Amino acid sequence: MNAEIITIGDEILIGQITDTNSKWIAEELNKIGVSVYQITSIQDDENHILNALKEAESRVDIILLTGGLGPTKDDITKRTITSYFNDTLVLDEEIVDHIKQLFQKINYPFTDINKQQALIPTKCTPLKNKLGTAPGMWFEQNEKIIVSMPGVPNEMKGLMLNEVLPKIQDKFTLPHIIHKTVMTYGMGESMVAERIEKWENALPNYIKLAYLPSYGALRLRLSAKGFDKNKLETSLDKNIKLLYDLIGDIITGVGEEETIEKSIGKLLKDRKYTLSTAESCTGGAVAQKITSIAGASSYFVGSVVSYATRIKIDELQVLEKTIKQNSVVSAQVAHEMAIGVQQKFKTDFSIAVTGNAGPTTAKTDKTVGVVFIAIASPRAVLVEEFNFGQPREKVIQRASNKALEMLQKEIIKNS
Amino acid sequence: MNAEIITIGDEILIGQITDTNSKWIAEELNKIGVSVYQITSIQDDENHILNALKEAESRVDIILLTGGLGPTKDDITKRTITSYFNDTLVLDEEIVDHIKQLFQKINYPFTDINKQQALIPTKCTPLKNKLGTAPGMWFEQNEKIIVSMPGVPNEMKGLMLNEVLPKIQDKFTLPHIIHKTVMTYGMGESMVAERIEKWENALPNYIKLAYLPSYGALRLRLSAKGFDKNKLETSLDKNIKLLYDLIGDIITGVGEEETIEKSIGKLLKDRKYTLSTAESCTGGAVAQKITSIAGASSYFVGSVVSYATRIKIDELQVLEKTIKQNSVVSAQVAHEMAIGVQQKFKTDFSIAVTGNAGPTTAKTDKTVGVVFIAIASPRAVLVEEFNFGQPREKVIQRASNKALEMLQKEIIKNS
Repeated sequence: MNAEIITIGDEILIGQITDTNSKWIAEELNKIGVSVYQITSIQDDENHILNALKEAESRVDIILLTGGLGPTKDDITKRTITSYFNDTLVLDEEIVDHIKQLFQKINYPFTDINKQQALIPTKCTPLKNKLGTAPGMWFEQNEKIIVSMPGVPNEMKGLMLNEVLPKIQDKFTLPHIIHKTVMTYGMGESMVAERIEKWENALPNYIKLAYLPSYGALRLRLSAKGFDKNKLETSLDKNIKLLYDLIGDIITGVGEEETIEKSIGKLLKDRKYTLSTAESCTGGAVAQKITSIAGASSYFVGSVVSYATRIKIDELQVLEKTIKQNSVVSAQVAHEMAIGVQQKFKTDFSIAVTGNAGPTTAKTDKTVGVVFIAIASPRAVLVEEFNFGQPREKVIQRASNKALEMLQKEIIKNS
Repeated sequence: MNAEIITIGDEILIGQITDTNSKWIAEELNKIGVSVYQITSIQDDENHILNALKEAESRVDIILLTGGLGPTKDDITKRTITSYFNDTLVLDEEIVDHIKQLFQKINYPFTDINKQQALIPTKCTPLKNKLGTAPGMWFEQNEKIIVSMPGVPNEMKGLMLNEVLPKIQDKFTLPHIIHKTVMTYGMGESMVAERIEKWENALPNYIKLAYLPSYGALRLRLSAKGFDKNKLETSLDKNIKLLYDLIGDIITGVGEEETIEKSIGKLLKDRKYTLSTAESCTGGAVAQKITSIAGASSYFVGSVVSYATRIKIDELQVLEKTIKQNSVVSAQVAHEMAIGVQQKFKTDFSIAVTGNAGPTTAKTDKTVGVVFIAIASPRAVLVEEFNFGQPREKVIQRASNKALEMLQKEIIKNS
């Protein structure tokens, strides 16, 4: 079973945005056993869309289109696809109600321009878009399936997961493609590769391994393909168990959602520990990662983002002397910040971060990229120095991930 | 002058990597006045490459291929392209020398497999790849240009900048393509479209408009194309000025980097105002946006992330009575949080956010998605209620953007 992904939008072709939808869709189709034959990005132009559809029909069984379904003038996918099927648009009252409900929630007026969103071709099965106003559209013609979805990533993803993928699975007998992603933190790609080299070489030929690194985190994706689902599952589980034996110290879990922030949440919750943070250069990024997990309120008490030096002194009880003698970016200041917030918020653990995110060294004498991270536990304070390089965004992201990684180890040590 | 970008590689089609080369190439081509008509990602497969080339030749003047030029078995682009031109491969001694030099530097032995890298079709002009072993190949046939480059991003970029772009500019007289992006916050796509409908309809035919929405922010991209650069610039500026007359209240600036966080930074810096934040459901996301701007330390003092109720009471002086009478998610609590942090951190302005990001309503009686945002200025406190729907991430992002948008208006009011 072959598919083609067609992404529609001038913003892709002028290089304003990277088309990330295609990667996501390709990955999801692979998971259910559909191979992607081609990805095509085209303009918001009627003839171009018509030609691309015709060509794709000659190549593949399933065509997935994204983009061009908004309410504004530049969005022409719906009327183009309607003419492709020699069809006409009719008002769908169910969609009108859905849009009205969506808009009521956020106090938006429902206008004529929105009503156009509820017009759909008669030949399509509408697919409910819970997160937006533009419905998905499912067409079948000459044994081919053609689906049109909005380009907004979370709307597209909702439609794919709730509607499109299940419908494709219903319709065809597909081989199983099972992906399992092992989440690791704190070790570089090449070092991990060396530690697992023998294991990697011994993988059966129906299991493929991919390294996916980002900001101090590394995902290892195992993909197994075949018709015997049980065999694939057993083999994947066996190999992941072997992987734990080799690098269990850096694994937070199996599955994309098993991030370090989730792993920490579980550790804290299980042990009934509480946590606070004191952040300087990360500016709230650590707290934000922690609170991105639903239910964080049961262990996360709060944070002091002490961007100004005086807040470190007034709110976190960092001594002026310590700052003068060591600079505000120093192990000693990180240490005092960690204890300051731990005592202030009466938590079992705390994280403190002070550093230079750049681009300039500002008032400190420390190189851009230098960051000190302190973890206060009920028993001790651990401080480490890092250099996360540049640019600013990378320093902030890597420092946040490293702080969480250090905290995780300290929680385990204290258990 | 139209181009097509063809990226070759199975890793793109299984969704293992995002094709970022295409975005970069598209942006560079646009800068020199070449429009990208289509981007096509295809497999490492001979027939697929031959078909893609044939189809692209029927559509565009310039075809740029990347990928499949490595020394291993799965790299088949070179021999496929050679057969496409009915050509044969010959050894290029200059390239042999180049590869030998490259390898000497890193103490690699030069083997037969590397010698294959120096084989090139007789009909092509080889393009020197300073950073790698695979040369670029420039073909001209039937008034069309076809260029093949390696897929390794820095090698491809070197070839594009040093060889391909200058050669294209030499060969053609190209039009100018100028993009300007107007950044707006706080109004939905369809409402903006209605307010600027007449303006949009009156745009000259050489200017195109695109709407690019995300989380309460909306970018309006104007693209002008033509041979008279001055005329394009003047017309763009004139139309942007007209746009300011219509929706100047929601515009933060012109240019992708003119985000609301940057706009606020400039406003605060110019007026020598300081800022603090008190965050509950956004968990540090507002502070993080503010501190993502280099130089934020000159106006941003700090934040209290008061996730636990007791921190709102102990640190922000929210009255227990206020919480009991109104719930912790209420206008009154947001109001007291804003004043609490403003006084504590001695800042001119403060932002406070309290709400339910979901997925459950936890300890409050408020619906998921309900958020109260308060802005304290030197003169007054403004509080507003919102419902940002679901899911959690969207609530957090929309609340953060909305808080910044409200702050911006208050700063301007106080100036």
